[in-house]
Amino acid sequence: MSIGKFEILCKDAKSNARKGLLTTGHGDIRTPVFMPVGTRGSVKGLTPEMVKDIGSQIILANTYHMYLRPGIDVVEQLGGLHKLMAWDAPILTDSGGYQVFSLSTLNRIGDDGVEFASHIDGQRIYLDPAIATDAQNRLGADIIMAFDECAPYPCERERLVSATERSIRWAKICKDSHKNDLQLLFAIVQGGIDLELRSYCADKLVEIGFPGYAMGGLSVGEGFDNMIRTTAHTVRHLPEDKPRYLMGVGMPADLIAGVREGIDMFDCVLPTRNGRNASAFTEEGPIKLRNSVYTTDIRPLEEGCGCYCCRNFSRGTLRHFFNVGEMLGPTLVSIHNITFLQRIMDKIHKNIDNNTFSEWSEEKLKKYAACGYVR
Amino acid sequence: MSIGKFEILCKDAKSNARKGLLTTGHGDIRTPVFMPVGTRGSVKGLTPEMVKDIGSQIILANTYHMYLRPGIDVVEQLGGLHKLMAWDAPILTDSGGYQVFSLSTLNRIGDDGVEFASHIDGQRIYLDPAIATDAQNRLGADIIMAFDECAPYPCERERLVSATERSIRWAKICKDSHKNDLQLLFAIVQGGIDLELRSYCADKLVEIGFPGYAMGGLSVGEGFDNMIRTTAHTVRHLPEDKPRYLMGVGMPADLIAGVREGIDMFDCVLPTRNGRNASAFTEEGPIKLRNSVYTTDIRPLEEGCGCYCCRNFSRGTLRHFFNVGEMLGPTLVSIHNITFLQRIMDKIHKNIDNNTFSEWSEEKLKKYAACGYVR
Repeated sequence: MSIGKFEILCKDAKSNARKGLLTTGHGDIRTPVFMPVGTRGSVKGLTPEMVKDIGSQIILANTYHMYLRPGIDVVEQLGGLHKLMAWDAPILTDSGGYQVFSLSTLNRIGDDGVEFASHIDGQRIYLDPAIATDAQNRLGADIIMAFDECAPYPCERERLVSATERSIRWAKICKDSHKNDLQLLFAIVQGGIDLELRSYCADKLVEIGFPGYAMGGLSVGEGFDNMIRTTAHTVRHLPEDKPRYLMGVGMPADLIAGVREGIDMFDCVLPTRNGRNASAFTEEGPIKLRNSVYTTDIRPLEEGCGCYCCRNFSRGTLRHFFNVGEMLGPTLVSIHNITFLQRIMDKIHKNIDNNTFSEWSEEKLKKYAACGYVR
Repeated sequence: MSIGKFEILCKDAKSNARKGLLTTGHGDIRTPVFMPVGTRGSVKGLTPEMVKDIGSQIILANTYHMYLRPGIDVVEQLGGLHKLMAWDAPILTDSGGYQVFSLSTLNRIGDDGVEFASHIDGQRIYLDPAIATDAQNRLGADIIMAFDECAPYPCERERLVSATERSIRWAKICKDSHKNDLQLLFAIVQGGIDLELRSYCADKLVEIGFPGYAMGGLSVGEGFDNMIRTTAHTVRHLPEDKPRYLMGVGMPADLIAGVREGIDMFDCVLPTRNGRNASAFTEEGPIKLRNSVYTTDIRPLEEGCGCYCCRNFSRGTLRHFFNVGEMLGPTLVSIHNITFLQRIMDKIHKNIDNNTFSEWSEEKLKKYAACGYVR
């Protein structure tokens, strides 16, 4: 096993879509891959056994959240993140950069690092690239992310440039402080929707050299077209032989469009967040289970879906569980929603294999856009 | 298959404990049995698959709750209670008597029935023995309960007598209106802790004749000694060859003491309610996971326990899940707690088989009393 090896298995002739195999310390990941999110060590409402049964290969957890609670020391004493999550397959940890900028109250952004107030209790906390990398080294995920500054959208050019420059400098510090050979440290390309800034950032990061590259600061309000244009442009500045990860992206149409532009990895909280909010993905569009039309609907969420929810529960029953506040409702619809995205990934693989990805993706993108399945 | 057949397989020589086999429309139940509670169609936080994996044979659901939401019509249209609960093994429905008197605001108790305000939205609702029986006939559980008046504890003698008399009259009406041969209608003996009233009620109900008898109005504040004395006394007035069910009882010590007095069936919300409140049953006493001593405790809740929780998660991890509010915490500890009670039932069976029940139960009762595992 050679950790970090990324083998391209198959390339689509008419697009940038490709299939690959990424070797990590906890096994190989077949890409393109969708990663469910287990922010605080648990994919919300699901046991790790359920996540595995769905076919998920890798779970994302958040350094920011684990750093605040229970704390990195505690995770270490509990045997590390894999043990805590009862997940012996690959894990990726986000660096905390995005969360510091989106969840907390910022006190100071300096060239050294960030001072912020915890979103839980207001506690004053300092994070910098070395600390975030050390935290991730100790959490023990298989893929860890560079600590970056994620500028908001929209953003003044001056702030965007400085955030991008800082993210490049910080990525270098992350690489220098990275001390765990079992882990792959991915860099994060920033630059908003400014294509010039994106290529500048990508080039600089590639110069430093990483085993994988992510695109951050997208899916934050810029819209589908901006996101995909920026992605397509950035990918051209990234090495062919390294995995590419589009962060925080996971609407059905976004996954397909991302793969078409050459993206290998995705993560998103939507399937579980929607699941908790009684909203289910189906091929015919979202089902909002709180709608009274489903009261006596004996059909499963999706005919032919083999997930535990669809094999056992009707829409009417799911509606009942949400109506009375039973935890089983969120659990079941989250299972279905992750299964739905997993099925899209499976179809992506098949269509790349069969050289039908281009036609298939075009048709699916139209359909999913009509369903509202775009960011 | 002859529904309602109750075969006594084995009797303890030194106590009233016995093992039996009760045939229902959805299979045989090996007694003594503990029934987890799925009030609104779901054992809180657990999938039916998890409940089955634990080894539970039968789930209890509540007519009162299903009557209010989603309504009996809706359950019927969704294919009945077994289909709704995705549970193809036996189900028992409580009649709603207990809930009407404990959860709702009563407007009128008459000899005909009860008028009350729903605990959900204050809606004025009328229930009587015929309606409750019809509702249960339509829900389709395998064992249904007579609609009774459950007097509070303590209770003036006059009210207790009238509630007991009414429960007897209502049991007769339930029997007369019962229209589903696939279901067993159990009567409920009332009478508080008044032994004379208990035997009077039991004798009258046995005269009417039912395939099973429950003891209601216990575990409502009267304490362990009163509960067991009343149970022991009542059992002597019930036929040997019919199952006996001690309602709402499920503290570890209560189960063992109940079996010793000849009880065959139990139900209780405690394992799941405690599970949601971060309190775990163990042989050494309850573990309150919110206690900071467990922060870095790498041990499972209980060494050697084979449940999904203990096989995969440490006390420290469980504490983390409760601390941050992850649903997985309640799910895991509920699994463990039901498993713990299931293991007690398994040991009861083994000790009856081995003719060691008497000694074993005495020792266990002492131990569990010291743990605070008594009502």
